[in-house]
Amino acid sequence: MQPVELAEALASFDEVFAPRIVGYYNGNKIQVAKAHGEFVWHSHADTDDLFLVLKGRLIIELRDGVVELGPGQLCVVPRGVEHRPRADEETHILLIEPVGEPNTGDSSKRAAAPEVELET
Amino acid sequence: MQPVELAEALASFDEVFAPRIVGYYNGNKIQVAKAHGEFVWHSHADTDDLFLVLKGRLIIELRDGVVELGPGQLCVVPRGVEHRPRADEETHILLIEPVGEPNTGDSSKRAAAPEVELET
Repeated sequence: MQPVELAEALASFDEVFAPRIVGYYNGNKIQVAKAHGEFVWHSHADTDDLFLVLKGRLIIELRDGVVELGPGQLCVVPRGVEHRPRADEETHILLIEPVGEPNTGDSSKRAAAPEVELET
Repeated sequence: MQPVELAEALASFDEVFAPRIVGYYNGNKIQVAKAHGEFVWHSHADTDDLFLVLKGRLIIELRDGVVELGPGQLCVVPRGVEHRPRADEETHILLIEPVGEPNTGDSSKRAAAPEVELET
């Protein structure tokens, strides 16, 4: 039950769209991730997707619109909703998804990142 | 799927230890709360408890120690673990618990707050 310092966790790696697990909540992975550039279009069939921006600006493209999030703003993409996260500058986010859920919603996609626990 | 501005949500009420729901994630309530002073000793039998500090300093007393969290720090109190949150200054937190779970773990406790959605 150690406190997790999110900024420190984010400072420990450079890859973008490669979430690191910093904790667990009821079978969900609490992750930090860096975003820069464009991720892939995807959806999660069986889970909502929680995004909280810590730094920078996250643009979540939807088929029928766009949501922009700055620091201290969060949104939940409901299950089944196609979305494409994008960031025009280096952006840091907190992400919550169930353990086992690929960040692409589908592990066969090339952009799927492995589930990695942050080494502390 | 509107972005939630956490600081704005927190500016809309004054009560302490009275979480406001700002969104939902897979049957969990995403809440913001103010803490100042001492809450009650409690545990949640069937759920972990996720705390992220946004402002101030949260002290989580445990029967065998203490965890202190500043802004940008999070921790998860595992299910069944007795704890007492405390703050010596006004402290703002993001809290995630399952829908229906009282903030005291037990709705018969006097300190139990009703589940309130933030009006937007």
